[in-house]
Amino acid sequence: MEHSGKYAAEFIGTFWLTFGGCGAAVLSSAFPEVGIGLLGVSLAFGLTVLTMAYAIGHVSGCHLNPAVTVGLAVGGRFPMSDVLPYIIAQVLGAGLGAAVLYVIASGVPDFDAAASGFAANGYGAHSPGGYSLMSAFVAELVLTMMFLFIIMGTTHGQAPVGFAPLAIGLALTLIHLISIPVTNTSVNPARSTGPALFVGGWALSQLWLFWLAPLMGGALGGVLYRWLSPTPTGSVEGGVPSS
Amino acid sequence: MEHSGKYAAEFIGTFWLTFGGCGAAVLSSAFPEVGIGLLGVSLAFGLTVLTMAYAIGHVSGCHLNPAVTVGLAVGGRFPMSDVLPYIIAQVLGAGLGAAVLYVIASGVPDFDAAASGFAANGYGAHSPGGYSLMSAFVAELVLTMMFLFIIMGTTHGQAPVGFAPLAIGLALTLIHLISIPVTNTSVNPARSTGPALFVGGWALSQLWLFWLAPLMGGALGGVLYRWLSPTPTGSVEGGVPSS
Amino acid sequence: MEHSGKYAAEFIGTFWLTFGGCGAAVLSSAFPEVGIGLLGVSLAFGLTVLTMAYAIGHVSGCHLNPAVTVGLAVGGRFPMSDVLPYIIAQVLGAGLGAAVLYVIASGVPDFDAAASGFAANGYGAHSPGGYSLMSAFVAELVLTMMFLFIIMGTTHGQAPVGFAPLAIGLALTLIHLISIPVTNTSVNPARSTGPALFVGGWALSQLWLFWLAPLMGGALGGVLYRWLSPTPTGSVEGGVPSS
Amino acid sequence: MEHSGKYAAEFIGTFWLTFGGCGAAVLSSAFPEVGIGLLGVSLAFGLTVLTMAYAIGHVSGCHLNPAVTVGLAVGGRFPMSDVLPYIIAQVLGAGLGAAVLYVIASGVPDFDAAASGFAANGYGAHSPGGYSLMSAFVAELVLTMMFLFIIMGTTHGQAPVGFAPLAIGLALTLIHLISIPVTNTSVNPARSTGPALFVGGWALSQLWLFWLAPLMGGALGGVLYRWLSPTPTGSVEGGVPSS
Repeated sequence: MEHSGKYAAEFIGTFWLTFGGCGAAVLSSAFPEVGIGLLGVSLAFGLTVLTMAYAIGHVSGCHLNPAVTVGLAVGGRFPMSDVLPYIIAQVLGAGLGAAVLYVIASGVPDFDAAASGFAANGYGAHSPGGYSLMSAFVAELVLTMMFLFIIMGTTHGQAPVGFAPLAIGLALTLIHLISIPVTNTSVNPARSTGPALFVGGWALSQLWLFWLAPLMGGALGGVLYRWLSPTPTGSVEGGVPSS
Repeated sequence: MEHSGKYAAEFIGTFWLTFGGCGAAVLSSAFPEVGIGLLGVSLAFGLTVLTMAYAIGHVSGCHLNPAVTVGLAVGGRFPMSDVLPYIIAQVLGAGLGAAVLYVIASGVPDFDAAASGFAANGYGAHSPGGYSLMSAFVAELVLTMMFLFIIMGTTHGQAPVGFAPLAIGLALTLIHLISIPVTNTSVNPARSTGPALFVGGWALSQLWLFWLAPLMGGALGGVLYRWLSPTPTGSVEGGVPSS
Repeated sequence: MEHSGKYAAEFIGTFWLTFGGCGAAVLSSAFPEVGIGLLGVSLAFGLTVLTMAYAIGHVSGCHLNPAVTVGLAVGGRFPMSDVLPYIIAQVLGAGLGAAVLYVIASGVPDFDAAASGFAANGYGAHSPGGYSLMSAFVAELVLTMMFLFIIMGTTHGQAPVGFAPLAIGLALTLIHLISIPVTNTSVNPARSTGPALFVGGWALSQLWLFWLAPLMGGALGGVLYRWLSPTPTGSVEGGVPSS
Repeated sequence: MEHSGKYAAEFIGTFWLTFGGCGAAVLSSAFPEVGIGLLGVSLAFGLTVLTMAYAIGHVSGCHLNPAVTVGLAVGGRFPMSDVLPYIIAQVLGAGLGAAVLYVIASGVPDFDAAASGFAANGYGAHSPGGYSLMSAFVAELVLTMMFLFIIMGTTHGQAPVGFAPLAIGLALTLIHLISIPVTNTSVNPARSTGPALFVGGWALSQLWLFWLAPLMGGALGGVLYRWLSPTPTGSVEGGVPSS
């Protein structure tokens, strides 16, 4: 494996997370009569991570999320020097995921990305359930913190081997089950950036929250678990790239 | 790991169970058109346990529930001397979980915890489906008994290694699929106490049942499995803290 | 483990399958607005088997179903001499499961087991979707055959270790996703017998099909897999009792 | 295991995928009030693969899909000489699956395969959501490419052992969550061919796309993962037959 393989893996994986999760939301969520609803969207986001973590965990650690990369670095599981290239690969992958989704979604006569929301994240007037900025900030902060806590714990050297991708993917499903009505659920700045590029306007002007709260929450989660259980990990999936 | 790590883990884990499970119920269950319904809530409760059991099973055993702690003690898998501190940590965590949920949920103009029920447990007039006190008591007793039976079995030394968190989490999902209409499903006195503090009134006056029936059921389940398969276990997840 | 432990395990496990699966159907399936629907019922049946197979697989093999016991015996994985006591334990457990469910379900004023159907299986006028006797027979025969094929395969000595309970439980979920509209899904004569005792009338007079088709299908599935892959198994879960 | 066992396994497995997945769609998806919807259908397709991959992965590799067979061959994981016999076995199995489903589904008075669509795949006027040919082609191409990428990755020698069938099955669920509204989701030429034989007309005339796009996508996915992580695999499930 050359050195660049891990960046390619993060690019492809974040493409999948954004295309798959937002794709389920945009294409299938409100389909008449038999739509998958918020439960199906929650499952879809979790399964993008579950499937990729088993497929590329041994290549890049399968972060797919700047808040995960930052949280693992702060938690002592990932080298600081790789944080920026990982984040760049993730944002580019998310952008491509939103672009391919746009191509497919625009194949019906009445498609309008801005009017539909295109799975962008928002608060206040753009929260699906009309939740305030403070509710949105608290939700994103706490949920990303707990996401990192779970990632740190399930990839710990004493946790059962091989199950981390399952637990981490289903943690993302759970996070969506809780919070889609609040912010459409981000906990992932890259995933938020992809659709915002196509919606523009409000989605771009609210994007700051979906970088700030997840990054802060992720860092807090990394610190919290490190305090709880400082033993170093030997596990490959989810935390430490193989190179 | 210092001695206090396991109590912190129970505190954080029960925070997650209460915040996540009740959060899905309060925020997402009845969202118009695309709400997650009782199926999504059932999945959410189960996934709080599944994710935490993989993350902190090696720290505290991940009980997150006074009925589990009591059942495992009666079943011979947990020291009696740690029962009370575990229960205190669990109730405090559940209280914090309900408090953070309250902060988020109150971010819409028309929120009223008491009127919404705030995911509190109840019987009779406060049972979601109008089930009697006796139905509620039998359901909580039998379901907690079987929950402990499954926990004892899946953490037994002869059961497949590493799968206990998966089976235990999905057992909690199953229990909710059966009984949300009867009591809103407790099987966990800590989880019941958290929301009741914010609903007050009827929720507090009915709280006795959601301590009594789960604790009795948990103890019965521990005894039942111990009778069936008395071999001691060597497994870490779910039953025995590592300290 | 004394010799009788495996019969007790089958009794408790089939109690759980019938109480849990039929309980989700009777109590939660059609709950107004947020009911779990046929998807939730399908998940519930599968999770009864998944949870029990991890909990008691090492005690009794966790058949919980006369068609499984017969299929495994015909497939060469279970001693013929234990077939009858297993079936007796399973039918008794299913009867108790239906009885406890009856106690809970009757805790609302307007409950009527016969009118509600009480999750009994049926064909023709008593098929949920009005499917004919022949459709019902073919569905139960083919689905039980494939169920046994999957059980034989996932407990084969060359299959991945520890995953059989997961795959077998989710196979039962899948079978329900396909066929609840046809027969309310049996593939298990014990599960059919429990509710039929409380519904009486048509449920008892149609019960023959839910013994005949699953037993025939189970035997066919055992034979089919044995022909495909005759290597003996060394796996404990799902196929061979530990005694 | 004689040489022909792997072909029989592919035949039976693709029968199960087509009968189970399309069966859930035809029989249960739109059942009044409590139907499983697109979420239940997505789960059903995934579970057909998950259950079979644990049951016959050690026999044939459990491809069940010409695009998987071609993608693995192009990715260097499967011998070219076995591609054609595998595809023949898969198409025959899918045909039988559709035929048995037809027998069951026609057991109600008003059944009409052509009018109901019988779970056939389509684009344009026959796309469930009215998506254009180009949307359909891009969706099928990209989703099959990612499906093969995940299959190659999860069966890689450095991926966690035993989890590939879980990840691959749930990948197929995810793919359906995204794209049923676009094409009814194929990513599998054999699965598309089975129902098309019973619907005739438009389904047969649109069948070319559901061979061309998945085969191209599968080959691209095999190439993409091989470029990313060229290390040879030692894993049995999903990629390499045991003979």
